[in-house]
Amino acid sequence: MYLEDYRPGVVFALGQVSITEQEILDFGRSYDPQPFHTDLAAAADGPFGGVIASGWQTCGLTMRALVAEYFSPLSSLGSPGIDEIRWPAPVRPGDVLSVEVEVLDNRRSASRPDRGIVRSAITSVNQQGAVVLTMNAINLVRARP
Amino acid sequence: MYLEDYRPGVVFALGQVSITEQEILDFGRSYDPQPFHTDLAAAADGPFGGVIASGWQTCGLTMRALVAEYFSPLSSLGSPGIDEIRWPAPVRPGDVLSVEVEVLDNRRSASRPDRGIVRSAITSVNQQGAVVLTMNAINLVRARP
Repeated sequence: MYLEDYRPGVVFALGQVSITEQEILDFGRSYDPQPFHTDLAAAADGPFGGVIASGWQTCGLTMRALVAEYFSPLSSLGSPGIDEIRWPAPVRPGDVLSVEVEVLDNRRSASRPDRGIVRSAITSVNQQGAVVLTMNAINLVRARP
Repeated sequence: MYLEDYRPGVVFALGQVSITEQEILDFGRSYDPQPFHTDLAAAADGPFGGVIASGWQTCGLTMRALVAEYFSPLSSLGSPGIDEIRWPAPVRPGDVLSVEVEVLDNRRSASRPDRGIVRSAITSVNQQGAVVLTMNAINLVRARP
């Protein structure tokens, strides 16, 4: 897909992504070493009653689905930023997330018309139907050659 | 530090975090497999002229510094979300990031006065002085017992 192909209002249901306890612990120890991400015993007595994924890892898992099925290596030029990340429910070991994305807007650059900005509303939902992530992504995307 | 100790206007210069080429490739392959994060040859010919870290990894590296020196395992209760993430410059292999955080606000919960919300403006700068990340974090923090 190129810039023009991201049509506002279109919704894509992407594939699922899953996470294991070991992946949660490994990520937590590298990037977010709070007890509820890294220590099973402390997490059991902590605010979430068990180990949960770092919110950054939830973003990364969701990104994996977006790269597989929404962004194209032919047109993706990276992201200047993300607005309003929310983690309304925790991600736990064994969870399977379904990722959905709605195109909000595509706008060609006036100064560099070979590219533009795509805005997307992204939602990840766990196997029980609980929303675990919402965010509004901004992406720089090439226009059709 | 507890809720009351996050005083609006106070700025903390945290320690530095660094990143290797291998860490960039490993993270990219797991969470953000776009060529400019995972493939040295393709990245050299790509939009950034070399491999760069996933923005999610830049957030994770910055989080490592925040967990080490800003949040406390005694009081941190996780985060409901983050606003306005911006990645104004890429992070490249060998970069060393300095993390700074300013407390914006602390507000006790009316319904659960043993805790409250801390808002923080976070900035990561590379060894050349270029800002590579800004974001406004929202964190749930325990009040003093």
